[in-house]
Amino acid sequence: MAHIQVPEGVPGIRSLVMFRPETGKHLYELAQVLLRGESPLSSAERELIATHVSTLNHCKFCASSHAAAARELYQEKKDIVDCVINDVHTAPISKKMQALLQIAAHVQQNGKSVTEADVAEARKNGATDRDIHDTVLIAATFSMFNRYVDGLASFTPDDPKAYEEMGKRMSTIGYVPPQP
Amino acid sequence: MAHIQVPEGVPGIRSLVMFRPETGKHLYELAQVLLRGESPLSSAERELIATHVSTLNHCKFCASSHAAAARELYQEKKDIVDCVINDVHTAPISKKMQALLQIAAHVQQNGKSVTEADVAEARKNGATDRDIHDTVLIAATFSMFNRYVDGLASFTPDDPKAYEEMGKRMSTIGYVPPQP
Repeated sequence: MAHIQVPEGVPGIRSLVMFRPETGKHLYELAQVLLRGESPLSSAERELIATHVSTLNHCKFCASSHAAAARELYQEKKDIVDCVINDVHTAPISKKMQALLQIAAHVQQNGKSVTEADVAEARKNGATDRDIHDTVLIAATFSMFNRYVDGLASFTPDDPKAYEEMGKRMSTIGYVPPQP
Repeated sequence: MAHIQVPEGVPGIRSLVMFRPETGKHLYELAQVLLRGESPLSSAERELIATHVSTLNHCKFCASSHAAAARELYQEKKDIVDCVINDVHTAPISKKMQALLQIAAHVQQNGKSVTEADVAEARKNGATDRDIHDTVLIAATFSMFNRYVDGLASFTPDDPKAYEEMGKRMSTIGYVPPQP
């Protein structure tokens, strides 16, 4: 049971956005620009950062749904997603993505945890200002979404199929707020 | 020095929004609706929640600027703000606000830290679903802003007067994105 009266059976953030569409509109628009808009990072890479932060925050709803979206977007390379979830250090990703995921993990702890060395390592492996900016903002944004979803104890489905459906929607339609 | 090339001398989130206005637009619109839009909580109370979370996250830029906005909005009761910063448990605020700040502090740690008992205590003291919702979303949102500002090491002024000016602007004009 959620801590407040939201539409029953509607999972995660969707139920909260139906409760309060005025703020929900901006949350969805932010997600759409940040994860689907123009960026040097692919949408798959951005969903991977979202998945990593949500996993570190133990937010099952966000981690499962964004992992599903990342698997859809990585297509034949979808195993990358579970490798990162299980052990980021051995995952078959570029050194640049390793460095960006390290920055994201530090943002997840606290903004001040991001060091000059973290940023230098990312740059050494080809990261630009925009890569670094987008990584930090995605990690910060999921530090928000995870807290919103779990702080109100919104409905978190157990069935993996529910997340597969969400992943399909998120990877094709993107982030469109539900109608209240 | 910020971790990325942002306009020099522009403090905090404003410099980041000038670097990336497409996401900044939605961040400012969210802040405006959440902190100035219709709510059972006054704008002063909402700025106090933002200040409390930013203080717990040791984000000097956000804590100082939102404290300044809260002082402006509390007017002759502005001492409340420094009482909350110094010791929330002895601050001269209602039992409802005490309970909501406790929820916010738990959201700051992790969404799952919010307990049924926290929510029951808030309700016992008159909090409605909207009070609880807005408190959780403000705390989650500042968990994002704090990480965005500090994760990119944006410029944090030392001069208290700079924050007084920001507080005046935030309490009158509200949240309007800077022009890039």
